[in-house]
Amino acid sequence: MSNTETEKYFTKNGEPYFLISGEVHYFRIQANKWKKHLQLLKESDANTASTYIPWDWHEIEANKFDFEGNSNPERNLIKFLKLCNELEIDLIVKPGPYILAEYKNQGLPSWLLKKLGKKAFAQGENGNIISDDLVTYLSDEFLEYTFKWYDKVLPIISSFQKKNNGPIVMMQICNEIGVFQWLSGNIDYNPKVISLYNDFIKKKYNTIDSLNSVYSTNYQNLDEVKPPVGRIKTKTDYCAYFDFHLFFRHYYNQYITILKNKIRSYGIEVQLTHNIPGWIYGNASELPMLIGTYSEIIKNHNDIIFGLDHIPEFQSFRNAHSGLACNKILQAVQPNSPVWAAEFQAGTREHHVRAYASDLETFYFASLAHGMKGFNYYMFSQGVNPQGKGFYGKTFYYQTAIDANGNKLDLYNSIKKVNHFIRNEKVDLITSQTNADICIALYKPYFYTELTTSQLLKEKRLNVSDLGLFVDPRFLREEILFNGLMRGLQTLNYNYDVADLDNCDFKKLLTYKQLWVLSTEFMDANTQQLLADYVKSGGTMIIYPIIPTLDLYLNNCEVIKNELSIDFSLKKSSHKVSAFSIDEVFTNFSQKLIFSEINCEPVAFTEERDICGIKKKIGKGQVIILGFAFGYSTDEHLQLYEKILKQNKIKKQLEISDNEIQFFVRESDKIRYIFFINYHNQTKSFNYKFISARKKSRTQKKITLNPFSYKVIKEKL
Amino acid sequence: MSNTETEKYFTKNGEPYFLISGEVHYFRIQANKWKKHLQLLKESDANTASTYIPWDWHEIEANKFDFEGNSNPERNLIKFLKLCNELEIDLIVKPGPYILAEYKNQGLPSWLLKKLGKKAFAQGENGNIISDDLVTYLSDEFLEYTFKWYDKVLPIISSFQKKNNGPIVMMQICNEIGVFQWLSGNIDYNPKVISLYNDFIKKKYNTIDSLNSVYSTNYQNLDEVKPPVGRIKTKTDYCAYFDFHLFFRHYYNQYITILKNKIRSYGIEVQLTHNIPGWIYGNASELPMLIGTYSEIIKNHNDIIFGLDHIPEFQSFRNAHSGLACNKILQAVQPNSPVWAAEFQAGTREHHVRAYASDLETFYFASLAHGMKGFNYYMFSQGVNPQGKGFYGKTFYYQTAIDANGNKLDLYNSIKKVNHFIRNEKVDLITSQTNADICIALYKPYFYTELTTSQLLKEKRLNVSDLGLFVDPRFLREEILFNGLMRGLQTLNYNYDVADLDNCDFKKLLTYKQLWVLSTEFMDANTQQLLADYVKSGGTMIIYPIIPTLDLYLNNCEVIKNELSIDFSLKKSSHKVSAFSIDEVFTNFSQKLIFSEINCEPVAFTEERDICGIKKKIGKGQVIILGFAFGYSTDEHLQLYEKILKQNKIKKQLEISDNEIQFFVRESDKIRYIFFINYHNQTKSFNYKFISARKKSRTQKKITLNPFSYKVIKEKL
Repeated sequence: MSNTETEKYFTKNGEPYFLISGEVHYFRIQANKWKKHLQLLKESDANTASTYIPWDWHEIEANKFDFEGNSNPERNLIKFLKLCNELEIDLIVKPGPYILAEYKNQGLPSWLLKKLGKKAFAQGENGNIISDDLVTYLSDEFLEYTFKWYDKVLPIISSFQKKNNGPIVMMQICNEIGVFQWLSGNIDYNPKVISLYNDFIKKKYNTIDSLNSVYSTNYQNLDEVKPPVGRIKTKTDYCAYFDFHLFFRHYYNQYITILKNKIRSYGIEVQLTHNIPGWIYGNASELPMLIGTYSEIIKNHNDIIFGLDHIPEFQSFRNAHSGLACNKILQAVQPNSPVWAAEFQAGTREHHVRAYASDLETFYFASLAHGMKGFNYYMFSQGVNPQGKGFYGKTFYYQTAIDANGNKLDLYNSIKKVNHFIRNEKVDLITSQTNADICIALYKPYFYTELTTSQLLKEKRLNVSDLGLFVDPRFLREEILFNGLMRGLQTLNYNYDVADLDNCDFKKLLTYKQLWVLSTEFMDANTQQLLADYVKSGGTMIIYPIIPTLDLYLNNCEVIKNELSIDFSLKKSSHKVSAFSIDEVFTNFSQKLIFSEINCEPVAFTEERDICGIKKKIGKGQVIILGFAFGYSTDEHLQLYEKILKQNKIKKQLEISDNEIQFFVRESDKIRYIFFINYHNQTKSFNYKFISARKKSRTQKKITLNPFSYKVIKEKL
Repeated sequence: MSNTETEKYFTKNGEPYFLISGEVHYFRIQANKWKKHLQLLKESDANTASTYIPWDWHEIEANKFDFEGNSNPERNLIKFLKLCNELEIDLIVKPGPYILAEYKNQGLPSWLLKKLGKKAFAQGENGNIISDDLVTYLSDEFLEYTFKWYDKVLPIISSFQKKNNGPIVMMQICNEIGVFQWLSGNIDYNPKVISLYNDFIKKKYNTIDSLNSVYSTNYQNLDEVKPPVGRIKTKTDYCAYFDFHLFFRHYYNQYITILKNKIRSYGIEVQLTHNIPGWIYGNASELPMLIGTYSEIIKNHNDIIFGLDHIPEFQSFRNAHSGLACNKILQAVQPNSPVWAAEFQAGTREHHVRAYASDLETFYFASLAHGMKGFNYYMFSQGVNPQGKGFYGKTFYYQTAIDANGNKLDLYNSIKKVNHFIRNEKVDLITSQTNADICIALYKPYFYTELTTSQLLKEKRLNVSDLGLFVDPRFLREEILFNGLMRGLQTLNYNYDVADLDNCDFKKLLTYKQLWVLSTEFMDANTQQLLADYVKSGGTMIIYPIIPTLDLYLNNCEVIKNELSIDFSLKKSSHKVSAFSIDEVFTNFSQKLIFSEINCEPVAFTEERDICGIKKKIGKGQVIILGFAFGYSTDEHLQLYEKILKQNKIKKQLEISDNEIQFFVRESDKIRYIFFINYHNQTKSFNYKFISARKKSRTQKKITLNPFSYKVIKEKL
């Protein structure tokens, strides 16, 4: 077993530390019950509370602030901060400007939205205001008011931070930046945005000739270049949208930088954080896209830790692979930070949803098994919106750990069990590691598609067939990667890591036995080179459903093809192939890569017996190229995944008598944890046998797990 | 309690009879195991088997048929038919031409698809063939070959029908007609279709003046009228698409009529059936649309019974309302036929899905509670596709009752329990009825949208805002009707019926205490008159979120408004209203109806205190008009539904100590069944008290239900 990237963890006073937080919205709870809520949080063995500080709530009118409860006892933020101190509970604060949180106007003051001119609002391509609560982040007017708010709230945060003996240990900057483009399916074409986009293009290309050569255009000067609108019909449209995506990453980074500089200017030194949405309809396949929108921020701000909004809505075997994938992907894009959940589902926002305590408890333990090092139960406390301040209804969140009056609900006991477990295991749990032989490559530029193809976009702007291509990036993300390979490996009980090709070198990749690369027709030259180097240096790369021959602007770029001396043609055939002697493997596209037999071993064939998959030794390594697309819908797909893993003798870490039980092994020098998770609606009994190279585990009696439950076994090594 | 429409049932030899069938695909099972499969089916207490008869399987080459197993033992249909006879199992046959069933080319012979000219294939608006297995149903060439197939297979079916002492009791005509437009998101613009469309328009309008006055156009003659393409931008586009939807209903009816005449010409007298898809992603909110595509067939063929494809994929409290709604909607559109499930989920098609036996068993009992009178377990038997004949993989269906080799799986015992229950209860169960005080109006024309807005359509063609309207029919269907009202009533434990406004008069509606009408801006004059008559004659109508003032072609039509003397204006306001003294009710649109106080009682107000809901006595009845849209996302919505029900003193049939348990009461003169269903992932204990006007039930001890389970209590009256 190759040991993977060392998992990072939080520390406190230099010691490994698990951040256990619960979300308590003081503004949604009667002030005389704050203490009860915080006490119950502490009694549950959490060490931290978390809350938004809604701008609207405290700046009642322009320049009229209340942080001391003069106008309303629930505005007494100072009292809440002191209470945390008194009870020795750490605190995470989230003062916006945006908070969302189903607060009216997403936390922006109503008076502000009336006051702001049109220039401050996000605008559609026709210049219409998109929504009366969506502003342009970098508009002068919005920033000006935000700074006025910050000028009042940041001094309070500063004086109550840990170094000044206050409770505050972490602060979130704004909330889910850019999410509105995803959720509303709109793009902000505000003139300010367009002007910044023009600057970005000028800086990036410098001369019109360099842009023309990339875009295949005949512009006379850079001022002619306008942001793209509508559907992608040509290669040039595609280039423009790709740069528009890059621009927004740059733009969000600029916004965060401005806010952060302001925050730091107040001597606030606590850990900063930001949150990433991803789950939708119980599946997290959009996460690779959403996490990609923060690529510039992650690159430029190593003092900001990104946390997941980990809200599956329901737990089931059907979405268990999404939970694992989320934790692995976050680890990949932030290899130097602990994996943490800024919002860790506790209860439900929608009244019609049922979030059963036992299901959530199982979900929590699964996340511990995956390597999570901190989380914030969202919501620990139910709240009741102040009159007129809620976006949906009066009550905020149902089936939480405690209700708005401070009564314990079912979930409280589950949370207590999880917290106890973490506290009891102390450093053992935190410093334990998972091992993986399999690495899945994450190539983020494939998922820079929030403006062109996503689940919530009103109009799909990208149809790859219009460009003469056939591997749709959304299809690759959802069906081939997420619900294909990742679901397949999880179902088969093989652990994997994810590597962000943007932040790793081939040496790191060589610590795995296999690297799985899911590719479209395009990939930049550097990354193609990285993959070629990896193979030549001894790696085994599995790449499908195509070999990239274009760069990200759809210009010719055949590094992999040339470096690995691969030749192929494209040909249509039936949906069935045989691969590694498995017959009738269903493939998604009729288009397939066809190879000649020269210098390689054929491993897959179309029904017409054309070679559509090869294995080839190159340098010290080898490559397996499958020229067809497949996800996971039939048993043949699972057989194929496993057959490919066997090419490098990759084994499961345990033999288990019922493979429907998912397991995860975590080890340190001294101990080993085995997490067994029953994601099924059925009682399961099973035996297991440890088959790692390390010391054998004791023989185990039969284990029985109730529906949707878990068991952790700890062994000394 | 008003007794609802008498539920219909199947009969055999004049006696009430429950049709219990299991799907067994002889062509996917080794011939020497057929007997084992059928025996196990019979042992499970089923009375019927069901199978497709794939055209491709038996017409091996053009005009070369094998029904006797000469080329392959699994082609010996005759043997299979005799075996059913021998074992005294009735049989449902489905000889296509289309079968789908994940059979290659959906059951059409490969040689046929090569032979057919372009004219026989479904074509896009640009004349391209949409897919190589999608034909134009009424193309001469396709019908010609279909008749050649029918000429061989129908004589066999005829000679093996019940009246000729064979096993065949039912025959399905084709399969899920029209589903390809829904699934593929394409429209068939084959020249033949267009020519039939032109005929349809000519027959419907007769003169160009009459069309011009409806469409608001200036065409010179009817030949100018072309089928609509692309997006709806104008009222005229909308009219054209509405007629295009009507045309396809007519077209499907024509196709079925042709096939049926052929079938009857062979002296086949058995019950005919056809199946309706509806579930997608675990929710059935598209069913009202899909069932609407068969409106002409249902109207014209009372000898064809429509059955549901009842495949929820997973069972949960989240989609329990969909199951109930499906059964109630089918009953509404076919009031003179028993509710039956042509495909009743047993196992799963996708390998990654888990269909737990206990969940399915609960789903089966819930359907019995709703009034289902027959079903076909799909799939009772797992199958293995003949080489090259499967669309996806080798294996067809997983977690079935028995595997391909005839071994019992978990589901077998569940099915046996269900079948035993039905057989034991005999006529008592079949003749029992549910009662409802609440009727939900189904107005099918709202859902004639499969060409313009549906979940799978590639491009949404209808944006109502382009027409100056704001109540989107898809939003009405999904969020207001299905996941709003229907989910709300199910959660609250109030039973309801659905009435198809197309097939009922106001007297039938008067048997309920309340009629709930969810309306868009448009509704035809006759239906508006029906609703007005209902109110004047003593009915209570709840209508929202708007009063129709247009007909189905968006021409002025204010029957309800005039007959009920209602006056209102439209005004934008915040998303919150107070209604029936419930504050902060979330509404979906900012647009609301505003009423004056004259002659009515205000019941709802915007935040600006405009009246947005009224109650008004009219004639012998009354109307409650809510000028705002709401579904079910917060607790206030449930409170509002219940408050409105209380206006007519509508009560639940039981008081139950845990309202999370769903219950259904079925009664006949002699007996009463109470079905308790635990749709939750938790063990539940509860008491109940019967509060119907009828004889009181005994006092009950506490009942405990395991996660996802049920209990049926039977009482003598």
